[in-house]
Formats: sequence, C-alpha cells, structure tokens
Amino acid sequence: MAHIAIPEGLPGITGGFAFRPETAKPMRELAHILLHERNSLEPGERELIATYVSSQNDCYFCQTSHGAAAAAHLGDEEIVKRVKADFQHADVSDKLKALLVIAGKVQQGGKQVTSEDVQHARDLGATDLEIHDTVLIAAAFCMYNRYVDGLGTWQPHDESMYAAMGKHLAAEGYRKPSIATAEVA
Amino acid sequence: MAHIAIPEGLPGITGGFAFRPETAKPMRELAHILLHERNSLEPGERELIATYVSSQNDCYFCQTSHGAAAAAHLGDEEIVKRVKADFQHADVSDKLKALLVIAGKVQQGGKQVTSEDVQHARDLGATDLEIHDTVLIAAAFCMYNRYVDGLGTWQPHDESMYAAMGKHLAAEGYRKPSIATAEVA
Repeated sequence: MAHIAIPEGLPGITGGFAFRPETAKPMRELAHILLHERNSLEPGERELIATYVSSQNDCYFCQTSHGAAAAAHLGDEEIVKRVKADFQHADVSDKLKALLVIAGKVQQGGKQVTSEDVQHARDLGATDLEIHDTVLIAAAFCMYNRYVDGLGTWQPHDESMYAAMGKHLAAEGYRKPSIATAEVA
Repeated sequence: MAHIAIPEGLPGITGGFAFRPETAKPMRELAHILLHERNSLEPGERELIATYVSSQNDCYFCQTSHGAAAAAHLGDEEIVKRVKADFQHADVSDKLKALLVIAGKVQQGGKQVTSEDVQHARDLGATDLEIHDTVLIAAAFCMYNRYVDGLGTWQPHDESMYAAMGKHLAAEGYRKPSIATAEVA
C-alpha cells in the first residue's frame, strides 16, 4: 500500500499524478519536452537515457515503462536490456555512449560530471543542446524515480501492461494520462 | 566556465533556464506550486526542506538561494544554519522535523522512506498532502541540484546577491526570473 491515500489501481507515477494534479501538469510537460518533442537526439535514444538512469536508481516502474517506450520507438527490446546491463557494449552510437556516461555521473551527483566527459561527447558529435538535455533528463529522472518510490506507489509486475503503456507513450508522449494506465485503473 | 555555452553572468539555475527556456517553464512552475502557492505548510517551512535537501546534495547555489528565501519568509537567518547543521535541535516544530526526516530519506533514495517514518509524521499532525509535497520537494531538489551542478554553472559567492534573490523569491515566487538575477546579469 502506498504511504498516502492514492486512488486504488493506479500504477507508479500515475498514482501520484492523480493525487496532486497541480504538480502533475508541469511534471508531465517537462517529460514531454525532454522525451517526446522533436530533437536531434531520437526519442528512442532519450528514452534509453531515462531508462538507464531509472535502472541505476533501481526504480522498477520507471525503468520498465520507459524501457517499453524505448523498445516501442526502436522496435527492439533487446537493446534496452543491453543498455541497462552494459551500455558500453550495446549496439548504440559512440555519441550516445558518451552521453550515457554523463547521465550516469549526474545520477550519482552533478559534480561528478567532468569537462573531459563533456569534451569526449562533443568530440563524438554531441551538441550543447544534446549535452544539456542529457544532464536534465538524468536529473529529472532522479526526481521522478524518487517520487515514485518515495510515495511507496503500487508497481505491478505485468509485462503486457508496460508494453501497452510503452506503445502509447511512444505514440502520444506525456502530456495526457496513458490509455494503458486508464485501462488498468 | 560552464560545460555548455550558457549566457555570461547568469548564476546557477538561471543560466540553464536562459539556455533552454522551453524546459525552464515547467521547472519554474513546479517550484512555484511546491514552494510558493498557498499550502498548510508555510512557505518558510517548505523553503527549509528545499534548503536542507540542497545542502545534503552539496549544491552551493540552491542551498544559498533557497536558504535566503527561507530566511526572508521567517525573518531569521540563524534557523536556516541550524536546520542545515542539525535540524533535530533546531527551533522548528516536531512535525517539520518528522518531514525533514522523510526529505532526507528521499534525498538518499525513494525506497529509504519507511511506513514508520510516514506514520510518525502523521502522528505529529502531518496531512497526506504535506507528506506528498515533502516527498516531491525533496525529489525535485534532487533534480534542480543535479541540473545546476551537472551543467557546471557559475555559482558566485556573493552574500548580498543571494539575500536580494531570497527576498525577491519570497515575495514573488518562481514563475518569473528574479530581479536580483537580472541585476547580476
């Protein structure tokens, strides 16, 4: 049971969002801009960054829902598992690997990011906007992950639910509640 | 120098906000709702939670600017120092101490929060909304702090600037850029 009186049957962050719609709105908006709006990093790459940070924070709901969104974008479930387990040997670009290094440092603490990390990403073609968004995606998931786990939300282990949620998120983004979630509720 | 090409002379988070106004908007909105809008927790108490989490994350800009906002709300600079150093012996309510325990756990990781921590806060009068907002303030500052430090922003040590910023934030909130910041820029 969650730590506070969240409406029944709403998984993960959707429970917190239903409890407090006022804060849900800017939190959804931020995720939509960072993960879904047009950007020189593909949505699937940005979802991989979100998934990786969520797995480092050990947040089941976020790593599974965003992992499903990444798989839906990329048409590949295996790459999600590889990125979480050992991204340096996953089939992603060297630029994305350099950005994942930065994201992993941000997850540990902002001061861990070095000029060398940033220069390495830049040498591999990363733009300032891509570096900025990587830092902010990683930082934002340190918020979302703590929100989901800090409220003790319900996090069902139901692969088909996450697969449906991932497809919906990949298609529609984050501004409105997921249809998959509404079906569960 | 910051890791990316942030406009000169903008301290801390204001540099990131100027670089990427699209993400700044929901980030400002979230801070405004959590810290400034009417709530059964006083704004000064909520700023103390933000300051405490920022100090645990060792983010100079955030702990100093929000510490100044807390001091402006409460008319007391000393209490900010006491809360950062040892809140259990600071002159704040037992309810706020119980909420600061929860905030400190969220800073370490959402799963650290226990049912007992939440029950203790509730026994001292905390409502579900207050517990929710405490979790989210702590989680959100794990984002803001990592954003500020992960971008390597300029964080001047200028007490009068932070005092002016704190007064402005206490009066006006977070929706618009701070006048103090505009003067520095």
